Amino acid sequence: MNSIEVCFSPELIHLHEVSGKLVVVVDIFRATSTMVAALAHGVTEILPFADLESCRAMQTQGYLIAGERNGLTAPGFELGNSPVAFLEGGYAGKKLAMTTTNGTLAIEKSKGAAAILIGAFPNLQATASYIQSQKLDVLVHCAGWKGRFNLEDSLYAGALVQALRESHANQEDGALAMESLFTQEGNNLANYLSQASHAKRLQNHGIEADIAFCLSLNRYEQVVGLTQKGELRVV
Amino acid sequence: MNSIEVCFSPELIHLHEVSGKLVVVVDIFRATSTMVAALAHGVTEILPFADLESCRAMQTQGYLIAGERNGLTAPGFELGNSPVAFLEGGYAGKKLAMTTTNGTLAIEKSKGAAAILIGAFPNLQATASYIQSQKLDVLVHCAGWKGRFNLEDSLYAGALVQALRESHANQEDGALAMESLFTQEGNNLANYLSQASHAKRLQNHGIEADIAFCLSLNRYEQVVGLTQKGELRVV
Repeated sequence: MNSIEVCFSPELIHLHEVSGKLVVVVDIFRATSTMVAALAHGVTEILPFADLESCRAMQTQGYLIAGERNGLTAPGFELGNSPVAFLEGGYAGKKLAMTTTNGTLAIEKSKGAAAILIGAFPNLQATASYIQSQKLDVLVHCAGWKGRFNLEDSLYAGALVQALRESHANQEDGALAMESLFTQEGNNLANYLSQASHAKRLQNHGIEADIAFCLSLNRYEQVVGLTQKGELRVV
Repeated sequence: MNSIEVCFSPELIHLHEVSGKLVVVVDIFRATSTMVAALAHGVTEILPFADLESCRAMQTQGYLIAGERNGLTAPGFELGNSPVAFLEGGYAGKKLAMTTTNGTLAIEKSKGAAAILIGAFPNLQATASYIQSQKLDVLVHCAGWKGRFNLEDSLYAGALVQALRESHANQEDGALAMESLFTQEGNNLANYLSQASHAKRLQNHGIEADIAFCLSLNRYEQVVGLTQKGELRVV
């Protein structure tokens, strides 16, 4: 049996062994949800960037550029960080360069892993099934909010621990706590998370449709991973 | 109304504002439980030390010395980190110098706060009542395990959030998650925490009596705080 553990923030990732593991990066509101939506609706690849300038520079190379800071579209960028923008398939066939406040940093800090997947509720079960085919120990790397624990990423971790119960032993307190919390609140996710600090920030931006999408379960069969070349693609 | 937030590890304390707050340091297994037991049973003061050598040096100044590393009594120390050792009152009237793996580090990293209290389940309600007399925002600083989240400290945080519901607004995801978890598991604490990684470590050391003590609720009226001079005393 493999194992699963949870890291609540990129600020704590140095305390975990990444090497040899399958790392699932999670930034539910909204980076990883947007990545899954974009690729499930026909975007061919996503290049993640930690900083705005490197991302912006990709526009001249034929990439759509998506940039978000503090929940808003970054100045001069074509797209922000809204998964709903991709649902009509209007960007199918395009390549996307993307940077977000927390999510792309967590991807950067996961490098060195045996494999990196992108986690989101809309493809939770597909991702869990794929993981079970890989026979690797799993580390869920929550992007958090500016280094702190956040509720939505941690609850996704709990959902994944639960989904992998048959194949991955939970030997660690973070995984145990979040599995308990997801077991308790999973049927009531939208209501429970409406108390979360980041959901409140997003509500202020008037993007309830994004929140509803980000908390919807198992609408896609596609699984998203980082290639050796550093692109996100359907695996 | 004041506020309450939770920091899950000394590795994350730089992301929280300590200044102006009442910080409650928590290391349930076993440092803060032992501190509360010692002072409730007549020890007059405790000097916390982050390192073994400074602590050991206090022996020549009339202090009992208590030192623990990785769950065991440190070589050459009179006492380890067992709260049960104090319950008979055999050390009443003595002064104690103490160092532990995680707990004393969390105290060090809390300095600069308006006030520092020591949290433990055996004096939870007394501590909550004292806090309500102080009219300060609260930060629960969990010692964790070698920098990581741990279950017992975090559940204490949840218990304190719940106990302060009438006076301290929970505006932050860590506090929200742990209050939910304590609400769910609080009546079943010993059984739930028997799954926790540190409880398993302690079970291997054969100290079930310590674990039972550390999870027992509200046996003391004494509240423990750090004085300006850096001693722990009943406040």
